[in-house]
Amino acid sequence: MDIISPSDTDAPLTAEQLDLMQGWWRAANYLAVGQIYLLDNPLLREPLTRAHVKPRLLGHFGTTPGLNFIYLHLNRVIKAYGLDILFIAGPGHGAPGVVACTWLEGTYSELYPDISRDEEGMRRLFRQFSFPGGIPSHAAPETPGSIHEGGELGYSLSHAYGAALDNPELIVACVVGDGEAETGALATSWHCNKFLNPVTDGAVLPILHLNGWKIANPTVLARIPHEALDDLLRGYGYAPIFVEGDDPMKMHQAMAAAMDAAIAAIEAIRHAARGEGGPTSTAAAWPMIVLRSPKGWTCPEFVDGLRTEGTWRSHQVPIPETTTPAHVALLEQWMRSYRPEELFDADGRLRPQFASLAPAGRARMSANPHANGGVIRRPLRMPDFREYAVAVPAPGQVEAEATRVLGGFLRDILRANESTRNFRIVGPDETASNRLGAVLEATDRAWDAETRDGDDHLAPDGRVMEMLSEHTCQGWLEGYLLTGRHGLFSCYEAFIHIIDSMFNQHAKWLKTSRAVPWRQPIASLNYLLTSHVWRQDHNGFSHQDPGFIDHVANKKADTVRVYLPPDANTLLWVADHCLRSWDRINVIVAGKQPEAQWLDMDAAIAHCSQGVGIWGWASNDRDGEPDVVMACAGDVPTLETLAAVDLLRRQMPELKVRVVNVVDLMTLQPKSAHPHGLSDADFDTMFTTDKPVIFAYHGYPWLIHRLVYRRANHDNFHVRGYQEEGSTTTPFDMVVRNRLDRFHLVGDVISFVPGLGARAAYAKQAIRDKLVQHEQYITRHGIDMPEILDWRWPADEVSAGEPSS
Amino acid sequence: MDIISPSDTDAPLTAEQLDLMQGWWRAANYLAVGQIYLLDNPLLREPLTRAHVKPRLLGHFGTTPGLNFIYLHLNRVIKAYGLDILFIAGPGHGAPGVVACTWLEGTYSELYPDISRDEEGMRRLFRQFSFPGGIPSHAAPETPGSIHEGGELGYSLSHAYGAALDNPELIVACVVGDGEAETGALATSWHCNKFLNPVTDGAVLPILHLNGWKIANPTVLARIPHEALDDLLRGYGYAPIFVEGDDPMKMHQAMAAAMDAAIAAIEAIRHAARGEGGPTSTAAAWPMIVLRSPKGWTCPEFVDGLRTEGTWRSHQVPIPETTTPAHVALLEQWMRSYRPEELFDADGRLRPQFASLAPAGRARMSANPHANGGVIRRPLRMPDFREYAVAVPAPGQVEAEATRVLGGFLRDILRANESTRNFRIVGPDETASNRLGAVLEATDRAWDAETRDGDDHLAPDGRVMEMLSEHTCQGWLEGYLLTGRHGLFSCYEAFIHIIDSMFNQHAKWLKTSRAVPWRQPIASLNYLLTSHVWRQDHNGFSHQDPGFIDHVANKKADTVRVYLPPDANTLLWVADHCLRSWDRINVIVAGKQPEAQWLDMDAAIAHCSQGVGIWGWASNDRDGEPDVVMACAGDVPTLETLAAVDLLRRQMPELKVRVVNVVDLMTLQPKSAHPHGLSDADFDTMFTTDKPVIFAYHGYPWLIHRLVYRRANHDNFHVRGYQEEGSTTTPFDMVVRNRLDRFHLVGDVISFVPGLGARAAYAKQAIRDKLVQHEQYITRHGIDMPEILDWRWPADEVSAGEPSS
Repeated sequence: MDIISPSDTDAPLTAEQLDLMQGWWRAANYLAVGQIYLLDNPLLREPLTRAHVKPRLLGHFGTTPGLNFIYLHLNRVIKAYGLDILFIAGPGHGAPGVVACTWLEGTYSELYPDISRDEEGMRRLFRQFSFPGGIPSHAAPETPGSIHEGGELGYSLSHAYGAALDNPELIVACVVGDGEAETGALATSWHCNKFLNPVTDGAVLPILHLNGWKIANPTVLARIPHEALDDLLRGYGYAPIFVEGDDPMKMHQAMAAAMDAAIAAIEAIRHAARGEGGPTSTAAAWPMIVLRSPKGWTCPEFVDGLRTEGTWRSHQVPIPETTTPAHVALLEQWMRSYRPEELFDADGRLRPQFASLAPAGRARMSANPHANGGVIRRPLRMPDFREYAVAVPAPGQVEAEATRVLGGFLRDILRANESTRNFRIVGPDETASNRLGAVLEATDRAWDAETRDGDDHLAPDGRVMEMLSEHTCQGWLEGYLLTGRHGLFSCYEAFIHIIDSMFNQHAKWLKTSRAVPWRQPIASLNYLLTSHVWRQDHNGFSHQDPGFIDHVANKKADTVRVYLPPDANTLLWVADHCLRSWDRINVIVAGKQPEAQWLDMDAAIAHCSQGVGIWGWASNDRDGEPDVVMACAGDVPTLETLAAVDLLRRQMPELKVRVVNVVDLMTLQPKSAHPHGLSDADFDTMFTTDKPVIFAYHGYPWLIHRLVYRRANHDNFHVRGYQEEGSTTTPFDMVVRNRLDRFHLVGDVISFVPGLGARAAYAKQAIRDKLVQHEQYITRHGIDMPEILDWRWPADEVSAGEPSS
Repeated sequence: MDIISPSDTDAPLTAEQLDLMQGWWRAANYLAVGQIYLLDNPLLREPLTRAHVKPRLLGHFGTTPGLNFIYLHLNRVIKAYGLDILFIAGPGHGAPGVVACTWLEGTYSELYPDISRDEEGMRRLFRQFSFPGGIPSHAAPETPGSIHEGGELGYSLSHAYGAALDNPELIVACVVGDGEAETGALATSWHCNKFLNPVTDGAVLPILHLNGWKIANPTVLARIPHEALDDLLRGYGYAPIFVEGDDPMKMHQAMAAAMDAAIAAIEAIRHAARGEGGPTSTAAAWPMIVLRSPKGWTCPEFVDGLRTEGTWRSHQVPIPETTTPAHVALLEQWMRSYRPEELFDADGRLRPQFASLAPAGRARMSANPHANGGVIRRPLRMPDFREYAVAVPAPGQVEAEATRVLGGFLRDILRANESTRNFRIVGPDETASNRLGAVLEATDRAWDAETRDGDDHLAPDGRVMEMLSEHTCQGWLEGYLLTGRHGLFSCYEAFIHIIDSMFNQHAKWLKTSRAVPWRQPIASLNYLLTSHVWRQDHNGFSHQDPGFIDHVANKKADTVRVYLPPDANTLLWVADHCLRSWDRINVIVAGKQPEAQWLDMDAAIAHCSQGVGIWGWASNDRDGEPDVVMACAGDVPTLETLAAVDLLRRQMPELKVRVVNVVDLMTLQPKSAHPHGLSDADFDTMFTTDKPVIFAYHGYPWLIHRLVYRRANHDNFHVRGYQEEGSTTTPFDMVVRNRLDRFHLVGDVISFVPGLGARAAYAKQAIRDKLVQHEQYITRHGIDMPEILDWRWPADEVSAGEPSS
C-alpha cells in the first residue's frame, strides 16, 4: 500500500511553495473562523470584544481545515498540469471552508459584487454566514462551483460519477467525509467505478477525509485497522494513497506527492484506455486519496480544559460560548494564530503572492462551468413523438404496452443525441423488466467489470446505467443533470420511495437555485414509474405503494409535476413534454402491460395539452348536465371507469354520464396553488358544482380530496384508490380488493345518484352477485373471469361518441 | 484466503450422509418447482399435461436451489453441534425454497394443518403459491421461521444483527443475495460487526450467495476479481470462506467443511471473549461464507435453445411458457430429474431417512421462537412516568427541553430492564444532539472497534446504537423488535425520510402479520422525531421536512399513530403509552429546545388520554359558542397559537376564542377511518359546525384538510403549516416565512371572523407593521426581537382559566 506520510515522502514542494501554500491555507482557515464567529472587526484591527461576535454561533468548523487543505492542493495540480477539475465537498456543513476558498480566488466577489475583495467585503462575508438573509452552512446552490448540497449526507460520490460521465477531460475531485461514508448511499457508490468508461467518461478522484469524528461518536472507517481500510478500498476497486499526520508543513509535502501520484495514475489509465491499442482488457484500479487529519485542525487544543482539536468537540463551534472575556480572548488568540496581517493587505485583500496560487478564470474550481450546468446545457435533439403513435382506429379496440411504445421513442432519442452523448437512462436493473428494451438497440448497458458469454448488451460506453441501487441511480442522474445533461430514471413505482429523501434534497436545490441569479436552468429530473401498484402479479403486497406521488405533491408547486397518461399515445406526449422541460421534477406513472388504447395521436395531443378533459366519446350527457361525473386518473382506473360506464349504459341507458380523464394531476389544484391548476370556472364546468363525482384514482384516494378541497363541488367527490390491500393475486382481484373495480364504481353511482329507484336495488344485488362469482372463479382457476379479460369498450358506443373536448 | 473448493477440501461427509443430503436437496428443489408450476398431479403419478400446470406462471426459481442448499447445510450443523440458528433469506422471491424446506421439516403443516404432509397437502402447497388466496412469492409473515420479507431488497443483514443483539447463544444465518448486496442499505450494513459484542450478543453468519445475475444484468460482486472480493469482505471485518462450484456432490463436501469452519470460528471468538480473561482487546474477524453457485442450479440447461441454467434467464420461471406439449414435456423431464419417487413415499410424505436430517421441535429454524418474537416478548418494566414530570405551577410560566426530560425517563427504562437487556435506543449519532444524553448515565454507546482517549461513553455492551446510517438503525430496530424486544429510534425529523421505504415494508409486515393466526404481537416501532422542521437554526433548508407524517398516514389505520405532544409532560405520557403498545408504528414529534410548558402532569394525562381537547384555561368562550376556534398541533404551533390568543385578548377582549390542542393527530379522522377518530358529534362539539377554525399545524398544512374533509365544519378550516420555505435563520423568522406565526394567525382571525369592523382594519395594519419591524430587527441583530423572545403567556389570564376539558 502507498502511505505517503511525513517520514518517508520525498518533498515535491520547494520551501517557497510550501511557505506560500501554508499562507493560503491559513488565510482560508482564518476566513472560515471569521464566518462562524464575527459580525465585525474582520481584520482584527482592534482588540476583539463581545460586540464583534455574533450573538448566535452557528456553523461547523471540524471538517473545514481539511476541506481548505484539499482545495488548495487541487489548485496546485490544476495549475501545474492544466487540469479541468470539478470539486465536490461531501462532508456536511463545509460551507465556511468552500466559501472562503471561492472568495480567496475571486469568484465569490464576481458573482456577489457586494461581497467584495476588501475589508468591507470580508466583513459582509463573515456576517452573512448562517445569518438571517445570508447563506446556509452547507455548500449549497448559492455556493460558486458547487453541484452538491452538504446537508443530507451520502450522495457526494454518486453525484461525482454522474458529473464525470461523458466528460472525458474532466476530473471530479470528491471529498467523502468519514461520517458520510457510513450512509448506505455512500457505501454502495464506491462501486460506481464499474460503470465508468475511461475512454468516453471523465475520472473521479475520491478523497476520503478521515477526521475521525461525527457529532459525538467516532467514525467507523477511522477506527478500523489500517490494513482493513486498505483492503476495503482495494476491494472497492481503488488504489488508495494515504496521507496521514498533523504537522501542516509535512502534510503539505505528503499531500502534494499524493496528488501528483493520483494525477499520474489517472493519466496512465486514460493513456492505456485511449491509446492506439484500444482499451486494456483489465481495468486498472483508479487512484484515490485517504487524508487522515485532525478534526478541527488548527483550532484551540483545549477549551475550558477539555481537549478540542482532534476530537468531536470541534465538530461545530470549537469555542461554544463567547460570553466571558476569557472566551473572547481565546477566540482572538486563535484567529491571530493565523497571522492575518501577513496574509491580507491594508485593504483586506489577499496579498498577491498568495493569490497567485489559485488558477485563473474558468480553471478555478469555483468557476468551472460544469458546476453551473445550465450554461452548457444543450436542448435534446428530439425525434417527432407522433411517429411512434399507436394506431387507434377507435377507442378501446386495440391493445398496446405503453412503456414498450415509449421504448422506441427513447431509443431514437438516444440515437439522435449520440454525437453529443448528453442523454442517459438510469434504473435498478429494470430496463428490460419495464419493457423499455428497445433502447438497447441504440446503446448498451454501461459495464466496465468482468464480462461473460451470454451477457446481454453490456459495454463500457453504454448509456443505460443499471445498478441495483436506487440511490446510485438517483445520484448519477442528479450529477448528470446538474452538469448540463439530460436523463430519465425508470423505476418500479413502489421502490422509488427508497430515494424519497434524495428527491427532497433535489427539489430543495431546484427551488433555491431559482433565486440564485447566476444559476442557469438545468434539465428536469424525469421519473418513469412503472411496474406499478395495480400490476404486481408476481410480486405482491411488498411491491405495492403509489405514495411517491403524495410525497412529491408536498414540494413547491413550481417545481413538481405529476402525469398519469392512460395509454401509449398520451405517454408519448407526456414523455416528450417532460424531456423538453427544465428545472422541474416530473413524475410519470404508466403501465407496462398490454392494455386497451383509448386515444389516437391527435386526440392524445389535444387531451394532454389540456391535462384534463371530458371524454365526449365515452359520455352521454352532451345535451346538458350529467347525472354523474365518472372521473379517472391512471391507466387501470381509466379501464375500470370505462367498463363501469359501459355497464351503466347497458343497465341504465337513461342515466347521463360524463367521463373526465385526468393526465396532469396538478390541474385539479386551484390555480392559486399550482400554475397548472384549472380555474374555478373551468373546474366547475367540467366537474359540475352539485353532481356526484365518482373518481377512480391510481394512488391513495385522499390525495384527490387534498387537491380539490377548495373546489365548489368537493363534498360530492367520492374517490376510490389504493387502500393498502394487496397480495400476489390476479389483476382484477387487486382492484376488487381496493374497491376500484367496475362493479364497485357502479355501486358508487347507485349510492350517490339520487332517484334511481327500484332499478338501483336490483343493480346492487347484481353487483354483489358478480363479486361473489369473481371470488369463486379466481380461487378455482387462478385467473380472472372471461367476462373481465374479454371486456372491450363497445364499438357501437364509440360510433355514437364525439371527440374529446 | 480460504477457498474450500471441490478440489482441495477434505470430505467431512460420509458417503451415506452425502447421499441423504443430496436427496433432501432434490426434494426441496422438487417442491420449489412444483410450487411455481403445478396445480395438480404433485407426485407426477400420471404424465404431466397442460391441465396440471398453472395458467399464470409466477415466481422466481433462480435463487431457490442455493437457498435450499444453505438451509440443508445449516440443518446439519444445528444437529451436529446443537446450535440455535435463526435463518434469514435476503434474496428476493425466495419463498418457493424456504416454504419447501419448512414443509419438509413439518413446521408448515403444524401451523397450516390443511397443507398436510401428504400428497393432498403437497397438491395444496403447490397450488397456493402465488395464487389468489394463497401465499406470496417472498419469505413473508406467513412463512414459518421468517422475520424478513424478501420483497424490497437490502435489509437482511441489519435485520440479522438486530436479531442477534442480546441473544448471546443465537447464531443468525443470513443469506445475502448478490443483487441485494448492491443496495445502499446492505452495503453499509456489513459494518454492523463493529457494534456487536461477542459476550452479550449472538453471532451473525453472513452467507453471500453469488449466483451472478439479477433480472437481466450480472451482479457487481460476482464480476470483480476474486482477490478484490476477498479484500472487500476482509475490509468489512470478516474472514470469508469461499465455496465455489456446480457439481452438487463436491459442493456438499465443500459447504459442509465451510460450515464446520465457520461454526468453529464463531465458537473460538465466543470462547476468547467470554473466557476468564475477559474479552480480548482486538476483535477477531467474524467468519462468513461466500457461496458461488449457478443461478437456477439444476433447472434445464437450455430452454428453446437458449442457455438457461447459470444465466439470468433462470431468474424467474426458467421455462417461461408451457403452452406447447414440448414445453410441458421439458417441465416434466426437469421435475422427474429430481426422482421424486425415491424421495416421497406412496402417501407423498418425505421418506424417513431424509426427514431425519432435519432437527426436531424448536431446533428447526422454521420453528425458532425468535422468529415469532411475540411469543417470547416480555413487557418492558416501566418506571412511573409521572415521576419525571416538570413542575408547571401555571401554564406557560416555566421552560423545559422536552427531549431532555424524556431522556431521564428513558435512562430509567434502560436501568429497569438491565437484567433482561431487552430495550435499545438507535439513532444516527444524534442521542446527544437530540438531548437524550441522560441515557448514557445508564448505559453506553455500543462500540466494538478501536477506542481512544476522549471517547465518550463507548462500550461493547452499550445499548445505545449509533451509526450514521438511518437504514442500519431502522434495520437493527426491526430485527430487534421482530425477535421480541423493545426499542426507540431517535432521529432528525427531515432525515427519517431516508427510511420511508423501510417503514413501508415494516407497516406491511405488521398488517399482514395480524392475519396470520400463529404470529403473536410484537412491540411497536417507536420513532422520536426531533430536531424538527421549525428549529433547524444551524442547518437550514436541507434539514426541514415534516412530511414523514404524511407518508405514515397513508398506511393502514390500525397500524399507525402520530403524536405531537406540545410540551414535556405530554411527551412523557405519549412515550410511556407508545412503549407499552404493540403491533403499531408510533411517530412522536417533539422539540428539543427550551420551550414554554403548558400542562402539569395531571392536566397532561387528562389531555393525552383524549388525544385532543379544549384548553379551557386559554379560552374565553366558556359560556357559549366561540367566535373562532384556534387549533394547534405541535410544540411550535402551540406556542404561536397561544401568543396569538394573547394578542387577540388584549386587542379584542370581546372576541370569544376557543383553543383546541391536538396531541393524537388521528383523532381528527372520522371514527370509520381510524380507531382513534373522534365521533362526528364530539368533533362538532369541539370544532363547532360553522365557526372559523384557524389551525396552526406542525407539518404540511394540507394533511389537516385531508384528515377532516368529511367533517361538517371542514369548509371553515384554515390551516397554516410548513410551506417549504426556510433557510438558516432565526426560529421566529421560520414561522413568519411560513405564515404560521402569531401575527399571521391573528391576521387569519381578522380575515375569517365576520363583523369585526373598524378594529380589524386597524389590527391588520398593526400586524403588517410588526412583520416589517421583525424583518428589520433580525437582519440587523441576527436574533429575534425581544418582544418575541420574552413573550410569556400572561399569568393573570391563567388565573382566569379553568382546567382543560
